Amino acid sequence: MAASLPPARAATQDDIRRHNLGRITQHLHASGATTRSDLVALTGLNRSTVGVLVAELSEAGLVREVAGPAGTIGRPSLMVEPIAESVVVLAFEMQVERTIGALIGLGGQVLGRLESRHRREGYRPATAVRQVATMAASLIALAPRQATWVGTGLSVAGVIDRSSGLVRIAPNLGWRDVPVQELLDRAMSTHFDDPPQTIVGNDSDLGALAEVVRGAGRGRQSVLYLTGDVGVGCGIVLAGSGMVDAGGYSGEVGHMVVNPHGLACHCGARGCWETEIGADAILRAAGPEAGYADVAAVFEAAAAGEPTADRALRSVATWVDIGLGNLVNIFNPQVIVLGGHLSHLLPYLAHADGPRSALFATREQAQIALPALGEDSTLFGAAEAAFEALLLDPLGTLSRSRALAS
Amino acid sequence: MAASLPPARAATQDDIRRHNLGRITQHLHASGATTRSDLVALTGLNRSTVGVLVAELSEAGLVREVAGPAGTIGRPSLMVEPIAESVVVLAFEMQVERTIGALIGLGGQVLGRLESRHRREGYRPATAVRQVATMAASLIALAPRQATWVGTGLSVAGVIDRSSGLVRIAPNLGWRDVPVQELLDRAMSTHFDDPPQTIVGNDSDLGALAEVVRGAGRGRQSVLYLTGDVGVGCGIVLAGSGMVDAGGYSGEVGHMVVNPHGLACHCGARGCWETEIGADAILRAAGPEAGYADVAAVFEAAAAGEPTADRALRSVATWVDIGLGNLVNIFNPQVIVLGGHLSHLLPYLAHADGPRSALFATREQAQIALPALGEDSTLFGAAEAAFEALLLDPLGTLSRSRALAS
Repeated sequence: MAASLPPARAATQDDIRRHNLGRITQHLHASGATTRSDLVALTGLNRSTVGVLVAELSEAGLVREVAGPAGTIGRPSLMVEPIAESVVVLAFEMQVERTIGALIGLGGQVLGRLESRHRREGYRPATAVRQVATMAASLIALAPRQATWVGTGLSVAGVIDRSSGLVRIAPNLGWRDVPVQELLDRAMSTHFDDPPQTIVGNDSDLGALAEVVRGAGRGRQSVLYLTGDVGVGCGIVLAGSGMVDAGGYSGEVGHMVVNPHGLACHCGARGCWETEIGADAILRAAGPEAGYADVAAVFEAAAAGEPTADRALRSVATWVDIGLGNLVNIFNPQVIVLGGHLSHLLPYLAHADGPRSALFATREQAQIALPALGEDSTLFGAAEAAFEALLLDPLGTLSRSRALAS
Repeated sequence: MAASLPPARAATQDDIRRHNLGRITQHLHASGATTRSDLVALTGLNRSTVGVLVAELSEAGLVREVAGPAGTIGRPSLMVEPIAESVVVLAFEMQVERTIGALIGLGGQVLGRLESRHRREGYRPATAVRQVATMAASLIALAPRQATWVGTGLSVAGVIDRSSGLVRIAPNLGWRDVPVQELLDRAMSTHFDDPPQTIVGNDSDLGALAEVVRGAGRGRQSVLYLTGDVGVGCGIVLAGSGMVDAGGYSGEVGHMVVNPHGLACHCGARGCWETEIGADAILRAAGPEAGYADVAAVFEAAAAGEPTADRALRSVATWVDIGLGNLVNIFNPQVIVLGGHLSHLLPYLAHADGPRSALFATREQAQIALPALGEDSTLFGAAEAAFEALLLDPLGTLSRSRALAS
């Protein structure tokens, strides 16, 4: 659509300065060292304004200027680079049987990483947040002394009300209406004085965010990131940010009905996409009598030439194709990233040039891609969510946060 | 998703002034007369800044201050109102068998309207643009002498490359890769010196835009507008503007596969939503032997208690329900507006509280609504697209346009 309306609130002088500082910090965070000339070109600001802004960021300790690679003639140009040790965030990904945590510095550098396993059954919210807070303490102990901790991001596979951090439903954990953000903030305060607030996000949304900032969707405006496990979800990034919806529940593509005559889904409908392409569908297609322990075993058998496994994956892939066609027709995206086990189904899709059922015009523009961040898209996305406040208002966020050494 | 990144370019002083002037003009255009105090509250600017901006708009002839309704005590407060005669746009909606044109003033006031019928068969692009240009001349003749003509919007039911105004495919007109914007601009210049450029948009996208600016989606951030005729399309408005996609082809929900065992669709796939809920599906469900002339006849018969027609509509409505459920799960929208013949199917939907297959959390937030602009959503949307440049940069656009009297 051609038309768009201006945002709701008018801009003030302070907004501009904040916006411009944020824009420069965001660029350095996503792309690393950059010359001042490139910052001038990227921002559209004049040289002296960029100079003033870089000086402010440098004084705040977020960036430094270093000699870049020497040019063919004359002295090397100065590069502005983000200081990974200046500000850090904690990122957590809560999976069904393990939780991954990382300490990540400005620029996306992983400064520490930790994993903790738990039993799938009866993993209660109180236990979960206590475990995350303990991991947080271990990770913060690894942080550089001068660092400022500006945020914590937590990924949960579920339907999340983003404004409150309430997990409405996380089927694989068996949670319903759990105020995870509130619980975690409380657990954090037993380890820390005045920790930054936690942001709780959906795993697919966070995966999409990370792939757009520093992965397969980098620099693209319209990117879908699919997660495939027992359930199927979709993170949707449009114009560089998460899709606006009524309550943060968008992207439930796993419950898009593609086969009204198919099997009943736990959600109450019939023939949902995840009943056709989720982990259970793959095991079902391979035949229970084959006795595959998990989806990975089916992929291995198919790769080793086992015909039943191969047939099973080809059959599931036709349903992947139908759903991808629907998403391509609905979103006309630039990139669809296949995460989770869906990445292993890519070779089994019938048409390498895009889903068969997509219209020609939308299909020719959609690239089906593997996640550039491998298994870590979601973890990096939790970090990006935690960096958000800093990237929107670098100096304000710094001034509101407490350096770890203080 | 919680996180978002700042826009690509940094803001300058000029940008702010333009943005603030645009914001005020946009509010007056959409909502009509407003007190200065409300403008202060709406923009977040201080009183004196709003005073300066209103004075600039008033000097440019776009707005005037008039006495508002008297309060309980003291003198009536001044209202700022848009002047419908100051700037005008032309809006055209090209349908299969007729073209509707309108002259619309600032604030959305219809100052003139014209319809022209044409034969469905062999309606060539050259004929179509000539007809639109002739209608334009008749409509501009109705414009107030002091008016400035700032834009022309044209709606076509098809897949449109918005950047170039190229109609990639308009199945019901039988057009493929027709540079409609270029052809129309050329045809316009045989009637006018230096006419403003035409913007060509997809009918559903434009319908969505109008329903958001002044209809059932007013003030809402996440709105879908469905068109139902032979085909089914969807305009998607998120955060007050059209969804960002790769090439302007998004919203092809008519080609969302909902019934893989269903009938072949002209697009090459099988069981597309429009093969189940489009006009042909309704006639097919009612039975060819019933001999209904068109969809309207089926709705009339059902309303008169004819059981076959009633059964047909109930059967088609179950497919409407499945597709709406998919859209609710994917977009988690605030409002879905049912346009075209879909509006008449609303009473036949099984669940008044939302589509049966939608998840509880998304369903409880989605309102299924009728278009507030009736049959004119798309026509008003074409006008909104034509007003876009003015609303983003009122004084700049005025200075680049020519008053009709000059």
